[in-house]
Amino acid sequence: MTRRPDRKPLHLNAFLMSVGHHEAAWRLPESPASGGTDIAHYQNLARIAERGRLDSLFLADSPVLMGDPGRRPANKLEPTVLLTALAAVTEHIGLIATASTSYNEPYNLARRFASVDHVSGGRAGWNIVTTAGADAARNFGLDDTPLHRDRYLRAAEFVDVATKLWDSWADDAVIADKESGVHARADRVRRFEHRGRYFRVDGPLNVQRSPQGYPLLVQAGSSEDGKDFAARYAEAVFTAQQTLEEAVAFSKDVKQRAVGFGRDPEGIKILPGIVPVIGDTEEQARALDDELDRLIRPEYAVRQLSKTLRVDPATLELDRELPADIPGEDEIEGAKSRFTLIVELARRERLTVRQLIGRLGGGRGHRTFAGTAEQVADTIEHWYDAGAADGFNIMPAVLPSGLELFVDRVVPILQERGLFRTEYTGRTLREHYGLPRPANRLFDTVDAAAGHLGIALTEVS
Amino acid sequence: MTRRPDRKPLHLNAFLMSVGHHEAAWRLPESPASGGTDIAHYQNLARIAERGRLDSLFLADSPVLMGDPGRRPANKLEPTVLLTALAAVTEHIGLIATASTSYNEPYNLARRFASVDHVSGGRAGWNIVTTAGADAARNFGLDDTPLHRDRYLRAAEFVDVATKLWDSWADDAVIADKESGVHARADRVRRFEHRGRYFRVDGPLNVQRSPQGYPLLVQAGSSEDGKDFAARYAEAVFTAQQTLEEAVAFSKDVKQRAVGFGRDPEGIKILPGIVPVIGDTEEQARALDDELDRLIRPEYAVRQLSKTLRVDPATLELDRELPADIPGEDEIEGAKSRFTLIVELARRERLTVRQLIGRLGGGRGHRTFAGTAEQVADTIEHWYDAGAADGFNIMPAVLPSGLELFVDRVVPILQERGLFRTEYTGRTLREHYGLPRPANRLFDTVDAAAGHLGIALTEVS
Repeated sequence: MTRRPDRKPLHLNAFLMSVGHHEAAWRLPESPASGGTDIAHYQNLARIAERGRLDSLFLADSPVLMGDPGRRPANKLEPTVLLTALAAVTEHIGLIATASTSYNEPYNLARRFASVDHVSGGRAGWNIVTTAGADAARNFGLDDTPLHRDRYLRAAEFVDVATKLWDSWADDAVIADKESGVHARADRVRRFEHRGRYFRVDGPLNVQRSPQGYPLLVQAGSSEDGKDFAARYAEAVFTAQQTLEEAVAFSKDVKQRAVGFGRDPEGIKILPGIVPVIGDTEEQARALDDELDRLIRPEYAVRQLSKTLRVDPATLELDRELPADIPGEDEIEGAKSRFTLIVELARRERLTVRQLIGRLGGGRGHRTFAGTAEQVADTIEHWYDAGAADGFNIMPAVLPSGLELFVDRVVPILQERGLFRTEYTGRTLREHYGLPRPANRLFDTVDAAAGHLGIALTEVS
Repeated sequence: MTRRPDRKPLHLNAFLMSVGHHEAAWRLPESPASGGTDIAHYQNLARIAERGRLDSLFLADSPVLMGDPGRRPANKLEPTVLLTALAAVTEHIGLIATASTSYNEPYNLARRFASVDHVSGGRAGWNIVTTAGADAARNFGLDDTPLHRDRYLRAAEFVDVATKLWDSWADDAVIADKESGVHARADRVRRFEHRGRYFRVDGPLNVQRSPQGYPLLVQAGSSEDGKDFAARYAEAVFTAQQTLEEAVAFSKDVKQRAVGFGRDPEGIKILPGIVPVIGDTEEQARALDDELDRLIRPEYAVRQLSKTLRVDPATLELDRELPADIPGEDEIEGAKSRFTLIVELARRERLTVRQLIGRLGGGRGHRTFAGTAEQVADTIEHWYDAGAADGFNIMPAVLPSGLELFVDRVVPILQERGLFRTEYTGRTLREHYGLPRPANRLFDTVDAAAGHLGIALTEVS
């Protein structure tokens, strides 16, 4: 490929998960035993990602013990605590964590993310999720997960309240005038008295407006509700896409929906996931991928798959395809887009259950790509140039080694091709993504045509 | 005083609050303008406290903008985020933060504190509060604060659920057996299915048991309900006591109640607050104290006092005593013990409103002591020897300078007298306080006679 320095740079996020995204990564000799709660391990990962000049790192989350703790490291640290610990050992990289709108109160969550933004000097991001699954619901007094539609309605109102809380102090509220004895200007701190369907919150927040105004808003659901939600609120979208065509269609769809909400399509960055398995040769990469798949214990994986698909595990035979009578997406209240992606992948490629388990073991529905550093860079460039992505969510199968290989071998190729930054030029997470600092809904005069809650499209001077 | 190396050492906690406990501290020329959210300022304080070999530092909290943001720095960071940031720059000192049982869910809070305990290597502590005040309630969908009694019932069940969550992984659950492919032993991770009056939580937590088992449990309410709660659950108690006699009686009372719950009275440490104002001479200390009081804007303070006492601000005249018709403690649903302490202080010393404001401006009901380092050490030793305290909650009027003076001038005197450690000998917060690591309720065989939920009194081997 030739160097084309005229292209706008792409964005790279490192999705950190314990000792790797492949469920059997922990069984490799190199993997630390207690990766999920080993702060030194995570600090090492954050430093590697920052060495690669990546835009951000990301931590997924659900308020429940996910899956079988026998199968893979299910023990983990609470993400806002972990982000703060990673902020302490880094200077530039953005710090994004998932948090649930179904099982948090806006006041508590808004405070935590505002605090992370203060502590990190403007590097916080919030991946907004509604949290599917009865297991999580049963940690919060419910028998089952709230209906999909209700979860999204609550999520929209949650974001509305959270942005009001973040905007309840004007940027110039704190004057700390020692002479007159006035610390903050009373007319620049506002009680807004939100009264909605799900929340009643008076405000103001007890944290003044943070360096970024508020954290970068990220979203990852790909159902119809999820895409509409992303189009309205999200500034970055993580998505699982198996084929280039589907990825192009998804990006176009979400950006068009954003335009429909009066937003600039450049204000929403689409980041498909990729699980790179990197070798000195293509054969070596495939051998590592195969070794990882062999380390999956199929009985664990079948149990998980049967739960996701809502079928009896006895109907899943390792060396046969999926049974024909799997319920449709409409019938489930869980993670709809993940469900559909798995079924479509299995049907399209006519995978046996064993093969499907291997594919899912690597990236849980995200695209696995095994090859040399050059080949990984090629596929990134190809998807980028085809309009499938504004950047990528890098999900190394094994950590730290997979992230080290990506940073030390793939990133230099992308830099050489003029596709990726060689130094950080911004200071905040939004600056890395080329996004403006949001205006203040409660205090700034905002162009009504900007839409998007009147937030995030107008730069504060 | 003579050296008596035979005495058991006392304990010292640094209560960190923005730029100082005196409400006008921020107006001194030396104070940083944005102390409440200035992470470098807090990191400096934590390092000073650790240099003094203090047992712990402490951050108060309420999920509401407290008081008038014009009057004093009301902007602050969320405490579990701030604790984590302070863990990153310290190695030994314990890290205690307040969190509300009325406005959190046990699963979320248990995760965060377990995570702080992991990240800090066993230094986390939780100050359990029920949160009084309608303003806080109105950030969480309520019109007014729940009844005092209900708040304490919920708090007790909250602690019950939280300890079950922390104990839902046995200490030996994670084996990470790469050969067999079993990460955690299924029979050592337990779903406990709590069904109570306030909470239904299935568990298990998604964080394995932390270095301390779980965070040190701290409590600070001094009402009848508060003292019973402390006697049942707390391992350390922060308390406001104006006189030696009251402090002795309080300590005796709480420890006797603890014995009534089947606990060892040595398992609960009583730490009265003291606001030391330290000068080279007594006159210099008093001059600083007076200067701070002069910097209080009385109109702000009268408004706050009228709110606390539930009286019309017009009835509070600066140069007269409190009006006679103040409602009794029984009639309020707020912070009962703080209310009574203020009224009794004013009546006992026949203080005018102006004088009362000065006394409260320093320590909000805690005891202010202005004097030389020697005099501060003397009063600490005197109270300690009289059985009024197992240690002290140090609340410097001005930060960092007041903490620096305490650490550099008072601590060496206490060390010289054999009253305080010269080096850290333990690694965890409980080790600093001489308290055992709690047994696991769900997995360890516990002596039933130990009481205290069957927790915290039996050391795990």
